[in-house]
Order: sequence, then structure tokens, then C-alpha cells
Amino acid sequence: MNFAEIIEKKKRGGVLEYEELKYAIDGYVSGEVADYQMSALLMAIFINGMEDSEIFAMADVMRHSGDELDLSVINGVCVDKHSTGGMGDTTTLIVAPTVASLGLKFAKMSGRGLGVTGGTIDKLESIRGFKTTLSGDDFIKQINDIGVAVIEQSTNLCPADKKLYALRDVTGTVDSIPLIAASIMSKKLVSGSDYIFLDVKCGNGAFMKDISSALKLAVKMKTIGESAGKNVEFVVSDMNEPLSDYIGNAVEVYGALEVLSGKKCKLYELSRHISAKLLSMAKNIKFGDALKEVDGVIERGEAKAKFFEFIEAQGGIIENENELLCDSVDVMASATGYVKSINCNKLGRIVCDMGGGRLKKGDVIDAKVGLKILKRVGDQVRIGETIAKLFYSKSSQKRFAQDVQNCYSITDKPTEKLKLLIDTRDCRYL
Amino acid sequence: MNFAEIIEKKKRGGVLEYEELKYAIDGYVSGEVADYQMSALLMAIFINGMEDSEIFAMADVMRHSGDELDLSVINGVCVDKHSTGGMGDTTTLIVAPTVASLGLKFAKMSGRGLGVTGGTIDKLESIRGFKTTLSGDDFIKQINDIGVAVIEQSTNLCPADKKLYALRDVTGTVDSIPLIAASIMSKKLVSGSDYIFLDVKCGNGAFMKDISSALKLAVKMKTIGESAGKNVEFVVSDMNEPLSDYIGNAVEVYGALEVLSGKKCKLYELSRHISAKLLSMAKNIKFGDALKEVDGVIERGEAKAKFFEFIEAQGGIIENENELLCDSVDVMASATGYVKSINCNKLGRIVCDMGGGRLKKGDVIDAKVGLKILKRVGDQVRIGETIAKLFYSKSSQKRFAQDVQNCYSITDKPTEKLKLLIDTRDCRYL
Repeated sequence: MNFAEIIEKKKRGGVLEYEELKYAIDGYVSGEVADYQMSALLMAIFINGMEDSEIFAMADVMRHSGDELDLSVINGVCVDKHSTGGMGDTTTLIVAPTVASLGLKFAKMSGRGLGVTGGTIDKLESIRGFKTTLSGDDFIKQINDIGVAVIEQSTNLCPADKKLYALRDVTGTVDSIPLIAASIMSKKLVSGSDYIFLDVKCGNGAFMKDISSALKLAVKMKTIGESAGKNVEFVVSDMNEPLSDYIGNAVEVYGALEVLSGKKCKLYELSRHISAKLLSMAKNIKFGDALKEVDGVIERGEAKAKFFEFIEAQGGIIENENELLCDSVDVMASATGYVKSINCNKLGRIVCDMGGGRLKKGDVIDAKVGLKILKRVGDQVRIGETIAKLFYSKSSQKRFAQDVQNCYSITDKPTEKLKLLIDTRDCRYL
Repeated sequence: MNFAEIIEKKKRGGVLEYEELKYAIDGYVSGEVADYQMSALLMAIFINGMEDSEIFAMADVMRHSGDELDLSVINGVCVDKHSTGGMGDTTTLIVAPTVASLGLKFAKMSGRGLGVTGGTIDKLESIRGFKTTLSGDDFIKQINDIGVAVIEQSTNLCPADKKLYALRDVTGTVDSIPLIAASIMSKKLVSGSDYIFLDVKCGNGAFMKDISSALKLAVKMKTIGESAGKNVEFVVSDMNEPLSDYIGNAVEVYGALEVLSGKKCKLYELSRHISAKLLSMAKNIKFGDALKEVDGVIERGEAKAKFFEFIEAQGGIIENENELLCDSVDVMASATGYVKSINCNKLGRIVCDMGGGRLKKGDVIDAKVGLKILKRVGDQVRIGETIAKLFYSKSSQKRFAQDVQNCYSITDKPTEKLKLLIDTRDCRYL
């Protein structure tokens, strides 16, 4: 076997065997296959696609390229979730304490943000004292003790995926459904949980712009997970406006605490859906019953108490929730009418440009800056009315308020609100 | 403009503008664009193809990436030829002195061989004392004086094409008609001749395996040349068996001398066709009349005399034509019947493995080794009859005789001989 033959096969639309993908990926990790060879193969895969058998193989090879988390020492049922990323997408901070307070074990490794998309680890790190790394033993002990731990991905978790992703990022091969599916699922498989829920975003602030692509990706990932013996369900959810009312790092923790305190909003709607899905899967109970249990632990403050137990276990301190917010300036509506659309991706870009996100790996971020969204698509607005708030740490950042205003498109005509849960089918029957 | 946008456009099947291709190629030559980015673009081009406008642009950008030969100081009409390469493809050694003895100026830069395909420069260098480099002034003077000079391509001739070709070679993006067309024509355009004849090979020993691909490539190259104001014609010729009766370096010079001495064979048939085409194009005379003139200079020994004048002008000495041959061993037919097919590419590989070709750039070659083909497709053979000869410089090389035998497939049934000139249409009317 040699790499030239593998490229040759794929560029003509052939189907690669497990051994061929293993040879290619292992060779790339070991350095025998050069960047320029792998990028040619990735482009051939991008354009010609991959059969399910190839996607399974790729996910499996990447899964076995580094360490694997052993959750067998945990007492109880381990669950995990993954979102394909978007603005104000803070569900982990709510789902984690919610399912833990319902007796499930939430053992999660998360990433940092890159570009416009935030990362759970950055958000947690905006909490004073919060430690994002734990030894393996401490991680397991914390989950056994309180049911939840969220740490940064080990550097040796799916090293093949890391190296491939970095190459895809600079060679125009990121937005490929087979490659995204294999990448995400390799990390989910290595993380050890048996029940996995996938939240696939769809809209102008997401990778997947249309419902059919999002659904395709979701089904692909579910199939990979199931072929590896996992229980996987998914939702396709809207990302044509931010999920949380907040975008940033510390402000998103603030927004999560609002939901855990009982605020009914889109972030709540999706977080309770994910939590209830995990509960119904893991306990094999009806979804409606699971929803009631979820609503119960949130209403009774048990989920919020679990959140504080969790962050304190990892060294985090929040004395006063307001410490998560900094100075803000109002963003006004530029016209009277209805919000027709929000450029979600652009909002993410603004937070990133303010220092709230990183342009390249290793950049230090400004955890305080961010946005609050007061008006959503379909909402009626009057000219000069506050539609958003901009949280700034330097007064020079106030100028971004204009950019935020420009993200709103306002029309005379009444506009429908956006449906959040776009596709909630029980995919077992797809 | 940035490279990511260019990849993005091409991977979705878009048509690149001149400025975009210029940005990409110039950036690649200067080092701003990395190998792994260019290889992704090349694969996208390979799979999605290129429009004529893109191929013209690519050829033009590569043409202007280095030095350009100025032939305006030459008195007379300069002509050039190119073959896409195959086994025993020695037409330059015959066409050059033939057209020069008919008053045309043959100013050619040639390459060295790589892999199974030989290179004119390697063949000429097998002649004792022959110098493959001349100063610019000496090159021009020699052409003005005797009508012909063949030198090695300047290292700064189309450096963009050189760098791109080296990358294509290791990323599975060589056999793309648009990329081959742009590569060849960039070098033809930079070489300064106004009349160009293209010999596009087709068959198991050529890049293009079928007639329709070969014709497509030929028409593409003709169109590029014409869009740059050149006069271009072509032939599609067979490469399902070697062209010359010899394959190697010194032995191919020997074979060329046989033709210049009047031997009628396939190499003669194609060489007179190319010479006559160049003559009819450059002098605007009928092809039939041109053929007569070509046959005349060969019959009268004028072309052979010009050959010796040419090699002597560049320091070469052939005291006795037999010095071009070394010891040989016979290859016998393994059965009685008709030659059904010859694995032409494999024959090239054998010569290469014997040391007659190079596996990688810079390898030193053994100029003496080679093959003589005595039987061609359609010929009747008896078991044990000599069908080929193997020229060896070390007795250990005799073992390759078996491999040569295996390249011949012999059948009971009478088989048709192969037609050499597959497509000779006047492409002006395509």
C-alpha cells in the first residue's frame, strides 16, 4: 500500500477500505505522509464524498490515535452531549448540573473557542478560580461524588483529529459533512459515554446553513455512534439568531445562571430538551416524563445548587452573579418595525474582535466582553429603542455598538418568530 | 483576495479569474502560499476541471514566471515541436536536422527524462563530448549559423511550472488534461517559436490511454497556443508499442541515425510527418509538397549531414555508429503465434530499472543500456525466435531479458498491426 494509490483511488471517486484510511491517517500522524499529500486527499474527499463505511473507519482510526477515557470506574450511567457550535450556545452549563441532579453522570471534556464560536472551557474559565484541568483520578472522583465534571480535552485525545483539523482549517476542507461527522464522533467515542445527544445547529451562525445539510450531518453522526455501539439521538436546532440572550464568556455564565434560576427563554427551551432526552435515553423513560423531572429540578433550584457545587469542586467562586457583568452601552434600533433577521455570525465576529474570542490558537481572550440580545427575529421595535447591550472592558470598545446595530435588519412587515427546535424526530426510526 | 477564497471557489466548481490564478501561482512561487494549500487547490482543479479561460490564464502566468527566450534576433522562421512522451520517442533527433536542412530554424530547449519516459537531453548526452548547455549568445549564433541547436531547459524557464509539477507529482494531480495542457504550453510559449507542432501520444505507454483524452488534450493545447498568437498543429499518435525500434539513450541515437540513413520504420513515419507539418506551416506550402521535400533531404543524406554538423557544433563526436551500442542478449518468443500486445510502459520501466532512466531527479543514468524491438503488434512469431534484444553494461542485467519477454502477449489468432498516426486532422477546422 502507498499513499499515492490511496489518493489515486479517492480522486476517481473510489471507496477507501479501512486499512487504506488507517494507513493514510496513521502515516499522517507519524509524519510519513506530508501535509501537502494529506491536503490533496482531503480535497478529494471533500469533493467526492465518503460512503458510510469510510466515515466509520475514519472516526474509528482517529478514535484510536491517542488516549481513551475509561469511564467504567464510574458508578452510574455516563451521558454526554455535543453541539456543532454557534453563538450564545451555553447548553452544557445548564444540562450538566441538571442531569447530574437527576442522578446521571456527566463526564465531559470540552474545547476552547476558535474564531466566532465560543468554547465551554473559556466560559468556565471566566469564573474566578475555576480549574479546567484535573488529574484522571480527581476527574473520576468528582464525577462519582457529585455527578459532574467538565475539563479541558487532554492533548492526547484524538491527536489524529487535531492534526487533520488544523490542516483542514487552512485548506478549505472544513465544511465537509463526512469529515465533520468523523471528527466530532471520534472525540465522542473516545470520551467513553454510552448515551450521547447531538445538537446540530442550522442557520446563518452555524456551519450548516440549511436544514437538509444539518439533518444529513446529524444522521451521519448518529450512524457512526450506533455502529460503535453507542446510544445516540439528536436535534436540529436554529442558529439564525443567538441561542442565549448573551454572547461572550462571563456573560454567558450569567445567562446560564438566569436559566437555572427559572428564566424561560430559548436557552432554557433547548437545554431542557437536551437534558430530558439524555434522561429518557439513559433511564429508558418516556420523554414527557423526563421533561417534567427536568423542569422540576430547575424549578426547585436543585440544578442551580448543583451548578455551584460543580464549579466549587473545581475551585470556582461566584460571590455575586453581577461580578460576571461589566459596563455596558445600549444598542438602539435604527428604524421602527419588526426584526426581519439577525446576522448571527457577524455578532460572533464582533465579540471576537472585541477580544472575547481568539483569532488563532493560544490567543489570550478578554473573558468579560460580550453582548446581550434584547430583541429577536419577529420582535416589534421602535426607532431608538434598546435592542441589545454591549459589554465592554475598554471604553474604546463602545464603537462596536454601531456594528451590532448593523447586524439587525428591520422591516415594515410583521415577521414570524424563529422556531428553535427544527427537527426533533426520534431518529431511531429514520 | 486571499488563497482561502480561491480554494473555496474552485472546490465548489467555480471559474477562477486571471487575477485569482495569478495571485495563487505567484504566491506559491514566492512561498506565501504553502505546499499543502496549493495541493488542495490542485486537487480541486483536478476533480472539477478548468474552463479554457482558466487554462489560458494558468499557462500565461507560468510563462511569465521566469525568463523568456527572445528569438527575434534569429534570421528566419523558428519552429518547435513537443511530444507528450513515450517509449522510443526520438523524433526530435530526426526532425531537428531535417527541418534545419530545409531552411527552418530549430531552436529547442529540452528536458531530461524522469521515470519511464526518456528525455532528449539524456539521449544527446550519451554522445561523447556533447554539451547540453550553451550561453545565450552561443545558442543564437549556432542557430543562425547552422539552423539548429538543442540545449537543456534553463533553470529559470517557467519556474512556476517546475514547482507546481514537482508538487503534482507527489499529490496525484499529474494526469489532469487542463494542468498538463497549461504546463506544456507555458514552456512552449516561453520558448519563443511561432510555429509549434504537438505530438500527443495515446496508448498503454502514454499518459493518455484513450484517443478521446489525447484528442481533448491536443485541442486544449492548440487553443492555448492560438490564444497567445502562435500557429499550432498536432497529431495524435500511437503509444501502444514503442515508437523507435530502440528504447534507451545511446541506442535511441543509433536508431535515429538509422532513420536518417534511410531506414523506413515507424520512427521514420512520424518524424517525416512532423517535419513536413512544420515545413508546410512555416512556409505555407501544401503538406504533400512538404512531405516530398522532407523525403528528399533524408534520401540525399542532407539531414544526416546536418545531424553531424549539429552535434559537432555542440562538441559531440561519433566516430563509429556502433560505439552507441553495447553487448546484447536475445529475448525469445515464449510461444508461436501473433504478437497481440506489448506492455509499452513496462518496457520503459525495465530500461529505467536497468539504470537507463532515473527514479528521482538528479540520479545518474547508465546511457548505454536499452532495448531493441524486433517484433511489433501483429507480427507473426515462432517460439524461440528473437523478438527483442537487451543491451546491458553489466552481465547481471541479462536477467531483465525475462521481463522483456513477459511484456509480449502472444496469441493464436492473427492480429492487426497498430496504426501509428491516429488522428492527423487539420485542426484549424475543429
